[in-house]
Formats: sequence, structure tokens, C-alpha cells
Amino acid sequence: DFLQGLSEVKPAFGASPKDLELSRPKGFVDCGDRERLIYERVMYLVEQVKVNERGPPVTCLLEGPSGSGKTALAATIGIDSEFPYVKIVSAVTMNGLHESKKCAHITKVFEDAYKSPHSIVILDKIERLLDYTEIGPRFSNEITHTLLNFLEQSPPEGNKLLVLGTTSNVTFLKAVGLRNAFSVTYSVPLLRTEEAKKVLEQLNVFSEDDIDEAAQALNDVPIKQLYTVIEMAAQRDGRSKEAIVYNREEKLNITHFLNCLEEVTADI
Amino acid sequence: DFLQGLSEVKPAFGASPKDLELSRPKGFVDCGDRERLIYERVMYLVEQVKVNERGPPVTCLLEGPSGSGKTALAATIGIDSEFPYVKIVSAVTMNGLHESKKCAHITKVFEDAYKSPHSIVILDKIERLLDYTEIGPRFSNEITHTLLNFLEQSPPEGNKLLVLGTTSNVTFLKAVGLRNAFSVTYSVPLLRTEEAKKVLEQLNVFSEDDIDEAAQALNDVPIKQLYTVIEMAAQRDGRSKEAIVYNREEKLNITHFLNCLEEVTADI
Amino acid sequence: DFLQGLSEVKPAFGASPKDLELSRPKGFVDCGDRERLIYERVMYLVEQVKVNERGPPVTCLLEGPSGSGKTALAATIGIDSEFPYVKIVSAVTMNGLHESKKCAHITKVFEDAYKSPHSIVILDKIERLLDYTEIGPRFSNEITHTLLNFLEQSPPEGNKLLVLGTTSNVTFLKAVGLRNAFSVTYSVPLLRTEEAKKVLEQLNVFSEDDIDEAAQALNDVPIKQLYTVIEMAAQRDGRSKEAIVYNREEKLNITHFLNCLEEVTADI
Amino acid sequence: DFLQGLSEVKPAFGASPKDLELSRPKGFVDCGDRERLIYERVMYLVEQVKVNERGPPVTCLLEGPSGSGKTALAATIGIDSEFPYVKIVSAVTMNGLHESKKCAHITKVFEDAYKSPHSIVILDKIERLLDYTEIGPRFSNEITHTLLNFLEQSPPEGNKLLVLGTTSNVTFLKAVGLRNAFSVTYSVPLLRTEEAKKVLEQLNVFSEDDIDEAAQALNDVPIKQLYTVIEMAAQRDGRSKEAIVYNREEKLNITHFLNCLEEVTADI
Amino acid sequence: DFLQGLSEVKPAFGASPKDLELSRPKGFVDCGDRERLIYERVMYLVEQVKVNERGPPVTCLLEGPSGSGKTALAATIGIDSEFPYVKIVSAVTMNGLHESKKCAHITKVFEDAYKSPHSIVILDKIERLLDYTEIGPRFSNEITHTLLNFLEQSPPEGNKLLVLGTTSNVTFLKAVGLRNAFSVTYSVPLLRTEEAKKVLEQLNVFSEDDIDEAAQALNDVPIKQLYTVIEMAAQRDGRSKEAIVYNREEKLNITHFLNCLEEVTADI
Amino acid sequence: DFLQGLSEVKPAFGASPKDLELSRPKGFVDCGDRERLIYERVMYLVEQVKVNERGPPVTCLLEGPSGSGKTALAATIGIDSEFPYVKIVSAVTMNGLHESKKCAHITKVFEDAYKSPHSIVILDKIERLLDYTEIGPRFSNEITHTLLNFLEQSPPEGNKLLVLGTTSNVTFLKAVGLRNAFSVTYSVPLLRTEEAKKVLEQLNVFSEDDIDEAAQALNDVPIKQLYTVIEMAAQRDGRSKEAIVYNREEKLNITHFLNCLEEVTADI
Ligand SMILES: Nc1ncnc2c1ncn2[C@@H]1O[C@H](COP(=O)(O)OP(=O)(O)OP(=O)(O)O)[C@@H](O)[C@H]1O
Ligand SMILES: Nc1ncnc2c1ncn2[C@@H]1O[C@H](COP(=O)(O)OP(=O)(O)OP(=O)(O)O)[C@@H](O)[C@H]1O
Ligand SMILES: Nc1ncnc2c1ncn2[C@@H]1O[C@H](COP(=O)(O)OP(=O)(O)OP(=O)(O)O)[C@@H](O)[C@H]1O
Ligand SMILES: Nc1ncnc2c1ncn2[C@@H]1O[C@H](COP(=O)(O)OP(=O)(O)OP(=O)(O)O)[C@@H](O)[C@H]1O
Ligand SMILES: Nc1ncnc2c1ncn2[C@@H]1O[C@H](COP(=O)(O)OP(=O)(O)OP(=O)(O)O)[C@@H](O)[C@H]1O
Ligand SMILES: Nc1ncnc2c1ncn2[C@@H]1O[C@H](COP(=O)(O)OP(=O)(O)OP(=O)(O)O)[C@@H](O)[C@H]1O
Ligand SMILES: [Mg+2]
Ligand SMILES: [Mg+2]
Ligand SMILES: [Mg+2]
Ligand SMILES: [Mg+2]
Ligand SMILES: [Mg+2]
Ligand SMILES: [Mg+2]
Repeated sequence: DFLQGLSEVKPAFGASPKDLELSRPKGFVDCGDRERLIYERVMYLVEQVKVNERGPPVTCLLEGPSGSGKTALAATIGIDSEFPYVKIVSAVTMNGLHESKKCAHITKVFEDAYKSPHSIVILDKIERLLDYTEIGPRFSNEITHTLLNFLEQSPPEGNKLLVLGTTSNVTFLKAVGLRNAFSVTYSVPLLRTEEAKKVLEQLNVFSEDDIDEAAQALNDVPIKQLYTVIEMAAQRDGRSKEAIVYNREEKLNITHFLNCLEEVTADI
Repeated sequence: DFLQGLSEVKPAFGASPKDLELSRPKGFVDCGDRERLIYERVMYLVEQVKVNERGPPVTCLLEGPSGSGKTALAATIGIDSEFPYVKIVSAVTMNGLHESKKCAHITKVFEDAYKSPHSIVILDKIERLLDYTEIGPRFSNEITHTLLNFLEQSPPEGNKLLVLGTTSNVTFLKAVGLRNAFSVTYSVPLLRTEEAKKVLEQLNVFSEDDIDEAAQALNDVPIKQLYTVIEMAAQRDGRSKEAIVYNREEKLNITHFLNCLEEVTADI
Repeated sequence: DFLQGLSEVKPAFGASPKDLELSRPKGFVDCGDRERLIYERVMYLVEQVKVNERGPPVTCLLEGPSGSGKTALAATIGIDSEFPYVKIVSAVTMNGLHESKKCAHITKVFEDAYKSPHSIVILDKIERLLDYTEIGPRFSNEITHTLLNFLEQSPPEGNKLLVLGTTSNVTFLKAVGLRNAFSVTYSVPLLRTEEAKKVLEQLNVFSEDDIDEAAQALNDVPIKQLYTVIEMAAQRDGRSKEAIVYNREEKLNITHFLNCLEEVTADI
Repeated sequence: DFLQGLSEVKPAFGASPKDLELSRPKGFVDCGDRERLIYERVMYLVEQVKVNERGPPVTCLLEGPSGSGKTALAATIGIDSEFPYVKIVSAVTMNGLHESKKCAHITKVFEDAYKSPHSIVILDKIERLLDYTEIGPRFSNEITHTLLNFLEQSPPEGNKLLVLGTTSNVTFLKAVGLRNAFSVTYSVPLLRTEEAKKVLEQLNVFSEDDIDEAAQALNDVPIKQLYTVIEMAAQRDGRSKEAIVYNREEKLNITHFLNCLEEVTADI
Repeated sequence: DFLQGLSEVKPAFGASPKDLELSRPKGFVDCGDRERLIYERVMYLVEQVKVNERGPPVTCLLEGPSGSGKTALAATIGIDSEFPYVKIVSAVTMNGLHESKKCAHITKVFEDAYKSPHSIVILDKIERLLDYTEIGPRFSNEITHTLLNFLEQSPPEGNKLLVLGTTSNVTFLKAVGLRNAFSVTYSVPLLRTEEAKKVLEQLNVFSEDDIDEAAQALNDVPIKQLYTVIEMAAQRDGRSKEAIVYNREEKLNITHFLNCLEEVTADI
Repeated sequence: DFLQGLSEVKPAFGASPKDLELSRPKGFVDCGDRERLIYERVMYLVEQVKVNERGPPVTCLLEGPSGSGKTALAATIGIDSEFPYVKIVSAVTMNGLHESKKCAHITKVFEDAYKSPHSIVILDKIERLLDYTEIGPRFSNEITHTLLNFLEQSPPEGNKLLVLGTTSNVTFLKAVGLRNAFSVTYSVPLLRTEEAKKVLEQLNVFSEDDIDEAAQALNDVPIKQLYTVIEMAAQRDGRSKEAIVYNREEKLNITHFLNCLEEVTADI
């Protein structure tokens, strides 16, 4: 059971690598059926890896708006796979390296993966791995082709691999041919009102009276901004000395919450 | 006989190089008349190589949609030629090399070929050999001209060569002059319903009742996606522990198959 | 009280770093409610930093027309935070360094910040940090991605960070993805007539008769140009030997002031 | 007599350099009046070289569609000139050299030419010498200017030079100023039906019944494709073991010939 | 008095640096009220520098058509300031230096200026300092940002600086942000008929009868071309052996003058 | 007298440098009033150089269609000046040098010129000195600015300089600012019928009957092509063994001449 699994996440996978946990700093709450379906489908691919014959790796791309929860989902799948080798490649982990050093780092991650019978490599926010900037546009063609090659290259006999990518710019990934280098792509959605409500209930920061008004205002807001707004609003309530924001007895002031939401989502 | 030849592929050419076999990880099934015709025409060129007088190499380009089976076809021809030297040049084999090292690698392959009385050089997915990316566009002009030169240069007296190219971007190859550097170009097609059915029969994954519905849904789907969908669907049937997917007694659930097909071919 | 705080700025924070003070060479006068509101909101973020759990830094961008007072505001918040580590990164402090040396400098600033329990890093005039020039456009992609990474990377356990950015070109920052790397953006406005009047009163350079005419002419003028014009006009009054311009007994000649204003704001 | 000369080509100039012969691997057949006229005009220039006073070299460009026979014509003129120094500069001979090494090679060829009383330098497929690719476009500006300089520079007293260029992209050569650096340009045409027939008669591959049908289909086909199609068709006749294709007793099957022609000229 | 000052220029400032004098090879004549007003305004800035508090330098840009006299004006102000440090940075003084050496040279000039209590740095023809060429456009982004930084950076306590820029391409300077890095910009005009007449009277090259016709023809002509035309015309009068052109007894032939003017101002 | 001077050119200036003579390999014939007027005007500038006071060099640009005789004219002026230092800078003399070596060469030429009391520097075909190619466009910005600097920089006290430029692309020179760096520009025209006739009379290659027909056909043809056509036509007359083409007793065949003219001027 998916929800069951979610509630047990922290204790159950204490052995999972540090950087997977850091990739989902708020843990993992239930965001509704749409995200759960994606979780299940990718978990099927995790199973498929185990039985695959020799050939290219199993590959899957998670795309969706910025802050919609793609990295958290990929990290959770990595943790839940219980595979001996799960590695996340992110721009932050390669910060400051030169282009060809980044290629070498990526190569190293895949070669390490090839040493394990079952592995997952998460390519997080692929546009950022390529140092992509829309103006120009600029990006590393060398890293692009390194990724294309590893998405296509067969691991050695006996080693099986799942490559999980995330992106908030699937249009760019199409243009450089990386979208089609993944066998399948799933779209991680923004929260709808009812899903936002579900999340708010789990976070337990509103009184029952306010929760509907809050959820209504959160329609199509990325879950990332939801966390930001809650933490900003908590200050304005004058409670900045109490460290724990979530599950507190005293609830958030809905006006402060709506003000912060407006500031954070303003189109400047 | 072509079909006859196909069924014997594995035993007959066990001596063929490893990377040719890896280039067609699913072996080679009969995809219908259209592909067979191309196979035959290229095999005539194989024969022609043997009698050619001194002059530029015999050259042929296989173009077609991504995943339509061009690489598998080229590898099969390489194997079936029984030539003493058959070499495949692919982006994966040159991964991580710098531009001029790639030129050196290509030069080495041709110079080795020149040492054999009859040789085949397969230039696989030429746009990728050039590190081509549509944005910009970016590609290696140096590698482009290296290929142009080897397509035109006469091997030494007594050595005869067939150069077989593959591409899924013939428009780009035209633009850089590589399309016309090949004497002849053949278009490898997507599977039509009746061809897809033929393939499904050979793979033996559907009950007789479902095979027509499956084939209907597969019209104009690349054979690559057909394999992907079968392997994904096999998981959803809850049979992930049984390693061999093809020719199994228990057949695929058609609904799972159609779901997976939809996911894999979705236009995201 | 905000205004109370303002008048005490100089004595109260004598310990603040030299370069913060140099970033607001005219001290900090009250510019009216609109700027004060921004000051308060950012001060809430300063408080929030103290209670934040592990995760990415708290981030905030101040945008607005050139000369509107963004740097002075950011410096004032840095001073008022009384945080043990407050560092301003500006183009001038990195003058003459090569691109990758600039990245190294920025990295050093963040790594130093990570050593302090509470820190503020001010990224001043981000477009200039990137050596941005509209023609081309030209800018450093390497520095862009260095900033993106530090805006997203979690400081080590126990260290908490506020990143404050300023820009007068939020359109460019959007285009390179830096605008959205900040959780919230506030717009620092130009002076309106009534705000200009308030500032002129504090600077005490006009007789009561002239102050309204001066303020009227200053509608939507950046505070930077206000200071420029006052200092130019003071010369034309033939008082160039008296060093102190502000709070002088003898007031400015309104005609000279209006002439200078016209010269300075002329659209050449 | 031109035709007389043609038939004697092989025996008469056995002493000519190897690479000139390799540049016309099929020898040199009579392609009709239009090509002959160009041959004669360029032979006048060959004569002119001998009497020229000191000054820039005599220069002539042969342009025309790809495969129309420009290189074969230039090589034939080089052979027929009986000049002590005749050198062909082609992309293949400079394969793998860096840009400035190519300039050095070209410089060397001209300096060697300057040592001979009468010389011919053939600049073959000039766009390829410049590593030209239409996309971008990309080409070597350094090589462009090296050629411009040698086309204009006077050889030393007593040394006389003819520079013969070939190109299938006169539009590009105009754009880089190389077209006008040649004193005169002649257009080498595609074969018309009657010219194709003349060639077929000399090659003696068709029965008298078929030759008109074949010639009709060959209207405006480059002579290069004519050779390609003949050699492909010869295989399909099932005669692949007989090495010599031309002047054979058994004639070509016209249907195979037309099929091959269609494949080779298909617009893919 | 401005005019008074002008007539005394040469004797009074014999101590001024050589390169300032070379920047106005014709000395400095009175060009009328419009230029005089600019001279006076900039001299106010010179005075302002002396009383300025710590902060960014006083900055002023002189823009106007090529040859209108901007450099001569800036050099004259530099001389008249009697400041201990007056330095002109021009493209000619940095000829042949590489980009970063040019930045180093500029840095050195400012650092030297910082050692003097009062200094003027003249940035002459800023577009040329940046190696600007309209095609492309091309220019040095590194030098651009070096200048931006020095226009904004505060000199050390006790050192005061005026930066005077000149440009004949204020549009370009706007585009790279340098126009707005100067506090105020003044437009140096072309000569109007009455101003041209004033200059001609001072140069004393025409008889009284011709001076009006000459002045009429000179409307909107840069003063630079006026000098060029006079010197050309003097040759055609057949007086080429008399070295001194100005203030001669024998006057210019008005027809020769008008011919030369037409040649020099022709729009070819 | 200009014509008088022309006929004496060869004997009178035998001492002139070799490369000036090579720049006008056909000597210098009278091309009519229009060219003569330019010659005279530039000779006035030559005189002007001698009396110039300290300041920038005298500068003059000769522009006009390719082959119209600009280089020959500039070389003739250089020879006729009898200046102790006359140097021609051409693309050919800098062939193969790298960009900055070319700048060094140009710098050396000017520095040598500065050592002579009177000098002429001819910048021949300036677009070629800059390695200009229309596609891109490409050209050396470094050489552009080197030239701009030397056109503006004052030679040392006592040394006087005339800079003579030639170009067949004044549009490009405008775009890079070089056109306006010259004080005056003269347009060297193509031959009109009557001027062509004058030239033909001097060359003495036609019978009196044919000369008008020939001249008619030569309207607006560059003098360069006139020489080319004469020399080509002389071959076709079957007189290739007689070395001297001009002033021969036997005249040209007008039909051969017109044929060659058509071939040479054809728009391919
Ligand atoms: N299901 C979830 N449960 C708890 N927290 C979540 C969940 N999904 C996302 N978050 C949190 O929301 C924030 C944004 O999520 P995440 O970084 O995964 O989004 P993203 O789609 O990867 O964004 P980006 O496109 O910017 O990379 C993170 O703090 C993350 O931990
Ligand atoms: N005739 C065939 N028999 C068996 N398997 C095939 C056949 N053709 C293709 N395949 C398999 O289908 C997949 C895709 O084929 P292949 O890689 O040759 O396609 P492609 O056209 O080269 O694709 P791309 O354009 O992406 O390079 C491979 O796994 C290949 O082994
Ligand atoms: N509130 C204030 N009190 C006193 N002086 C101020 C205030 N705001 C701005 N100034 C002064 O006005 C000038 C311009 O302000 P500042 O440099 O902060 O503007 P900015 O918005 O950062 O400009 P830019 O966009 O050019 O960086 C400075 O001299 C600054 O000290
Ligand atoms: N007159 C001829 N007689 C015999 N063979 C010829 C003749 N002309 C061309 N060929 C042959 O036809 C083929 C193409 O000719 P060639 O290479 O000279 O064409 P091209 O115009 O130079 O082509 P490209 O533009 O591709 O360089 C060659 O094999 C050449 O030997
Ligand atoms: N007021 C003046 N008195 C005497 N000579 C002057 C005066 N103004 C300009 N000149 C002379 O006119 C010529 C052009 O002036 P200057 O070089 O200052 O113009 P500029 O505007 O700087 O031109 P550019 O835009 O090309 O740099 C110079 O020879 C200069 O000495
Ligand atoms: N007046 C002349 N008398 C004799 N020969 C001349 C004369 N003018 C030009 N020529 C000859 O005509 C040819 C072309 O002249 P030249 O090279 O000077 O032309 P150009 O205008 O410099 O051409 P380009 O634009 O290509 O540099 C040369 O051989 C030159 O010697
Ligand atoms: Mg993410
Ligand atoms: Mg393939
Ligand atoms: Mg600022
Ligand atoms: Mg050729
Ligand atoms: Mg100037
Ligand atoms: Mg010339």
C-alpha cells in the first residue's frame, strides 16, 4: 500500500543515502491520486529492471512545472527501490567543475552503477546538468551527448540499470534529443485545490475553519511555494521563536498566509 | 532465401564481432517485404564490392524514423556479408573522446579496413557521430569533413570497401552534404499493422484473440517501442519474476499492453 | 519602530563591516511607507532564518529602477540584522578577476557564510556580477549557474542563511532563471512627489518656500539623481568652498536646482 | 584533334603523376561538344601561360553540378599540358590536417610550382578545401585568404603558372570573393540525352535496342551517377563474378538499369 | 572669463602634460556660446570635485558628432583644471595591447589617480577604448565592465576624482550601460554658420569679401573638416612652400576652398 | 604635365622600390580625364604633407570597382612622390601571418615611416588586409583598430606622413569606421567607351577598323579585364609563340576578342 509506505518512510529506509534524503527535505506526504499513479508506474519499472535481459537501460523521465515535486518523487522511488546502488546526479553536486570534468563525473557514476547488479541513476533537473540558459541558448553539447550515450549504452552482462530523469523544461529536452532518449515520460502535476487540502491536512497548520479558504487559494500552486508561504506566514504571526512550524498547536493566521501567498506568487 | 537466413542468424555467424550482435540485442525477426527488399538491395552492394575496380568505396545510407530498425539491419548485413573486416562506428564507442580524437578513431577504422581485401564500415547514426544538436545547430565540422573524405577516398589497390551509414535525420545530413556523399539511400519504414502482426506472431506474446487488436494499435509505431511496450506490460501482469518475456506460455494482458503503449507514445 | 531605528543607524551599528557602510554612502533616510513596508517584510525573513530547519537558504530579491535605493536598503538590512556574518558581493569587489576566479570568490563567500550560525549574503546588482551587457547579449553562464547552485544548495546542519539579491534588470534575471531561484521578489519604487518632499525635509537643503516646487519636479526621479542634482546645484550657488552640502544654513537656489535636474535627466 | 587526343590518353601520358590518374578513375571519354569546347578553351590558357609576361598567374574556374566531370576534366588538362609540374590540391590529400597546416600545405604546393618554368596547380572542389558546410555557414577564412593571395600573387621572374579551380558551389565561391579571383569561369554541364547516348556507346554496355531508352532516362543526370548505376545494375543481372563491367559481351538488363537509376536519383 | 582664458591657453599652462596638448593640436579657439556653456558647466564639476564627500567619482560624458571638438574640449578642461593629476586614456595610447592588458592599463591610470588629492581621468572616445565595431557588433565586454566599475567605485578617503568621457556613439554607450554610468551628459554641437564665421575670423584665412560665403557653406560641418579643408585648399593656391597656413597675409581662394569642402564632405 | 609624366614613368623612377613596380605590372597608361583629375588631387596631398604642422597624418582613400586601377594609381603616386620612404602594405605581403603578427607588421611599417621626414604608406585593398569575408561577416577587429589608430596617431615631431588607402568595398569600410578615418575619398571609375578607346590606342593591338567596335564593347569594363581579354584573344589568333602581345605589328582578330570578352564578363 502506497500510503502505508509513505507514513513509514523515515524509519523504514534509514539506511538510504544522505543525499537522497536531502533531496526531499520535507519527507514525502500524500499529494493525491495523480502523483500516486506515477509512483506506481515507476515502481513497475523498478521491478522490470530486475528481470531485463542484456540491452540498453530502462529509462523514465519525470517532467512538470518547477517546484511540483519531481525531485522528491524520484528520491522517494530511489529510496523505496532498496537497490544497492542509487545515485543522484545534480547540478549542485557538480558545482564549479569544468564541462569535461562534469562529463567525467557522470561517467564515473554510471561506471559505478555498472558494478552493482541493480542500480538507479537519477539525473536531476537535466537542463541544469547541461548548464542550460534560455538566452542564446547556452548549454553544454558535450554533456548532452554524454547523457545520450549513457541512456543508450548497454550495461555489462549481469548488471541492470534504471535511469530516472527529472526536468521542468521538457521543450528544451525535446530540442536536444534527450526527451526521446527516455522510453517513457510522466508529467508530475501542480496541486489542485482538493490535493492542496489533502496536503494541508497532513501538515496540520490550519484550523478547520480556514483550511478550505487556504486550499482554494492554492489551486495550481507548486507544492514548493506552499511550504515557502507557510514558513513565511508563521513569522508574521509573531511566533518566530518556536522552531517547529508544522503540526503545531497554534494555527496559522489565514490573512498572513494569503498575504504571503500573494507576495510569493506575484508576477514581477 | 531471406527468411531462412534470418532463422539461422545466430548459429551461422557465431564468429561475428561482439559489437555487431550488441547492435541488434533482439536478434533479427522478419518485418515484412519492405524491409526485406532493402536487405536484398544492400546485399547486392556487398556483392558489388567484391568485383569493383579501383576507385571510391561503394556507399549506401539507411535512413528512417528513430527506432525503425536501421542499426539492426546494418548489423545484420555486416554479419551476413561474412567479410573479414566489419566494423561499426557509433557515438557510444567514441564516448568522451575529444573532437580530433574522434577523427583519429574514425581514421583508424578506415585504415584498418584498407588492410583487408573486403571490408564494411558501418557509420551508425551519423548525426550522433557529429555530436549534432538541433539547437544552434551544433555539430562537429571537423568530423563532417573527415567522413566526407573517407566516403570519397579510394582505398589502396586491391582493397575494397562498403560504407554503410544510418541516420534518423536525413534532412541534417543533406544540409551538411553527407546525404549526397552516399551513392544511394534507402528508407527503412515504420511497421504497418500487417507487419506489426507478423512481428507479434514471431514474438509469440499474445493469444490469438488479442493479436489483431494489438497489431491495429501498433500502426506506424517503431519496432523499438513495440519491444519497450511488451516488456513494460509484462510487469503489470504481475509476472515480473519470470525472466523470459518472449515465447512464454502465459500471454500478455491486452489492456495492460494498450495502456503501456499509450504511455510510451504520449506526446509530452 | 522603523523610523526610530533609522535615526539610530550610525551609532548603533558602528561595528558593521566597512563595505556595508560604503554601500550606502549617504546613510539611510526615511523614503516613505512603500520602502518601509519592504524593509519590514525582509526583516521578517531575517527572523525566519533563525528558526529554519535544514534545507535551502531563505532567499529574497529586491528589484527596481536604477538608483532607486536597492543597494542602500539591502546594506541597511544587513547592518540591522546584527548577524555575525554579513557579506556583500558586488562587481566592484571582483573587478579584474577572470570568470572562474569570480566563481571561486563567490564560492568562498558562501563557504565562509556556512561557518556562521546565521549569515546574510548580499548579491548586489546581479546582472553586473554576471558581466551582463545587453548587446549580444553577453554574460557569464558559469557565474549564472554558480549562483543558481548556491541559491538552492542546503547549508550544513546548524548553519542558516539569507541570500538577498538586488537587480535593476529583472527581465534579464527571469530569462536566465535567476528570478525564480529566489522565493520572493519585492519592487523598490522611485520617489513620488510626497516621498521626495519627505526626503528633502530630512536633507534640509531648501527654504520652506521652494520645497514644494522642488518636490513636484522630482516625481519619479531615482533618489540617486536627487543627491546628484543637489550637489551639482550647490556649486552653481557659488558656495563651492563650503564642504558640507546638507543641513546648511544657506539654502539652494531653486533655479539652479531645476537647471541641474534638467541636465541630469535629459534624454540624450 | 580532341577525340584523337582522348583515345590516346592512357598510353601517351603514362608518365603523368599518379594522383592525376586517380582523379579520373574511369579515364576520359568524349562527352560531346559542350565539354570539348571547354577543354579547348582551357588548353588555350595552357598555351598562354607559356608566353605570359611577369604578373599574376593565369586563372580559370570550372564550375558545375556535383558529379558532372569537373575534376576529371581538370586532371585531363593537367595531363595533356605535359607541363613539368602539375599538382592537384584536394580535401582528401589534406585530410586530418589542422587549418593552418592546410594553409602551409597549399603554400608548399605553390612554392614548388614557382620552382618550375611552367606549372599547373589544380584547386579541386574549392568549397571542400575550405571545409565549407552550408549550416552556419562554416568554412575556413584563413584558407580562403591563402587562396585569394596565391591567385593574385605574381610568381617569381621566369616562372609561369596556371591555376585551375573546380567547384560545385559557385554561389558560395562568389560570396567569399573566390569566384572573382579567377579571370574566367566555365560551366561544365550535365549530360543531355544525346551526350549520354554518346557516352553509353563508348562504354558499350547496352544492346542497340536498349541504348535509346537508357539515354532518354539519363537526361540531365551527372556522369558520376551514370557510372554508379551501371555498376549496380551489373550485379542484379547476376553477373557479379565477372570483374570487368564495361565493354562486356553480355549487355545490361534495361529494367535493372532503370530500377537502379530510380533508386540512385530518388529525392530522399 | 572664458574667452580671456582661451587666449591665454598656451602660455598659461605650459606645464600641462604633453598628451593633453597633442589632443588639441590646433589649440583652442572660441566656437561660440553653445560650446562655452558646456565648458562652464564642466568647470563647475571640476570645482565640485574639490568639496565632494567620500563616494563615487563625479562623472560627465561629452557626446556629439565625430570631429565636433569633444576631445579638444576635454583636454582643455583637463589643462584648465590645474589639477595635479590629469590623464587621458585613448585607443592610441593602448594600441596593440591585448584586451586584459588594456584593462590593466586602465586600472593603473585609476590607481595612480587615487594617489592624488584631485584628479581627472579622461576616457577618450569610449567606443574605441572598447574596440567597438558596428558589424557584429564587436567590442570588449571585459573593458566595458572595467569602466563600469571604475565609474562607480569610490576612491579612497581623501582622494577625489572627476571622470570625463567622450563619445561620438552615445547610442552604443547606452546599449552597454555606459551612458547611464555617467551622472550627466552634454552634447557638443557641430558649427552653425555664425559659429563657423567666428572661427574663420580667428583663423584669419579669408578676405572679408569671402568669409560669409565660406561660413554659409560650413553650416553643420564638424570643426575637424574645417581645418582639413583649409589645409587642402592652401595647396591648390600654389602656396605649398609657405609652411604656416593660418593668419597668413595672402588669403585663400574661395573656389578652391569650396571645391575641397565638396570633396571632403562628399557622401561616398 | 600629367601625360608627359606618364610617358616618362619607367626611365625616370627606376630607383623606386620593386614592389611598387610589381603593383602596376602593366606600367601606367593614360586612362582619360577622370583618372587624371584624381591623380592631380592626390599629388596636391603629397605636396601638403611636406608643409604640414605636427598632427595626424594626411589621409586619402581610393575606392572603386574591382580591377578599375586603384592599386596601379596608388603605386604610381608613390613612385612619383619621390619620397624617401614609400611602402605598400598588401594582403600578399602578409600572407600566412597570424592576426597579431599582421598587426605587428603594420606597426613596423608605420614606425619605419616615422623615421623618414616624408613618407607614404599605401594600405592596399584594406578589406583584404582585414581578412574580410562577406559571409558572417568575418574580419579582424584587431587589425581594424590597429589601422584606425595609425590613421589618427600623430607621427613624431618633424616626420610627415601620407596614408593612401585603396578599397573595392567602401560600404564595408564605412561599416567598420575606416571610411571616415580618411579625410577624403576619391572614386576611381570604370573605363567609358572613349576612355577604353584611348587605352586601346596606346596599347596598339587593334587595326584602325576594329578599334571602335572593340571600345564600344568595353563600356564599363574594368581595365583589368581589358588586359585579360587581350592576352586571351592573342592565343586564339594562333600566335602563341610570339611573346610580346602589345604594340605588335599583327593586330588582334576582333571576333576572338569579343568572344573572350563575353567569356570573361559572363555572369556565372
Ligand atoms: N510529496 C511530497 N511530500 C513532501 N514534500 C514534498 C513532496 N513533493 C515535494 N515536496 C517538497 O516540495 C519542495 C519542492 O519539491 P521538489 O524539489 O521535489 O520539486 P521539483 O519539481 O523537483 O522542483 P524543480 O523543478 O525546481 O526541481 C521540496 O522542498 C520538496 O521536499
Ligand atoms: N528486424 C528486427 N528484428 C529484431 N529486432 C529488431 C529488428 N529491427 C529492430 N529491432 C530492435 O528494435 C530496436 C530498435 O532498432 P534499431 O536500434 O536498429 O533502430 P534504429 O532505427 O537504428 O533506431 P535509431 O534511429 O534510434 O538509431 C532494437 O532493440 C533492435 O534490436
Ligand atoms: N533610503 C536612503 N537613504 C539615504 N540614501 C539613500 C537611500 N536610498 C538610496 N540612497 C542613496 O542613493 C544613491 C542610490 O542608491 P542605491 O545605490 O542604493 O540605488 P540602487 O537602486 O542600488 O541603484 P543601482 O540600480 O544603480 O544599483 C546612493 O548614494 C544611496 O546611498
Ligand atoms: N569525360 C569523362 N570520361 C570518363 N569518365 C568521366 C568523365 N567525366 C567524369 N568522369 C567520371 O565520372 C565521375 C565523376 O566525375 P568527377 O569526379 O570529375 O565529377 P565532378 O564534377 O568533379 O564531381 P564533384 O562535383 O562531386 O567533385 C568520376 O568517376 C569520373 O572519373
Ligand atoms: N575649440 C577648438 N579650437 C581649436 N581647435 C579645435 C577646437 N575644437 C576642435 N578643434 C580641432 O578640431 C579637430 C577635431 O577636434 P576633436 O578631435 O576634439 O573632435 P572630436 O569631437 O573629439 O572628434 P572624434 O569624435 O573624431 O573623436 C582637432 O584637430 C581639434 O584640435
Ligand atoms: N593606368 C593604368 N595603366 C596601365 N595599367 C593599368 C592602369 N590601371 C590599371 N592597370 C592594370 O590593370 C590591372 C588592374 O589594375 P589594379 O590592380 O590597379 O586595379 P584595382 O582597382 O587595384 O583592382 P582591385 O580592386 O582588384 O584591387 C593591373 O594589371 C594594372 O597594372
Ligand atoms: Mg527538482
Ligand atoms: Mg540506430
Ligand atoms: Mg545598487
Ligand atoms: Mg570533383
Ligand atoms: Mg575625439
Ligand atoms: Mg588593387
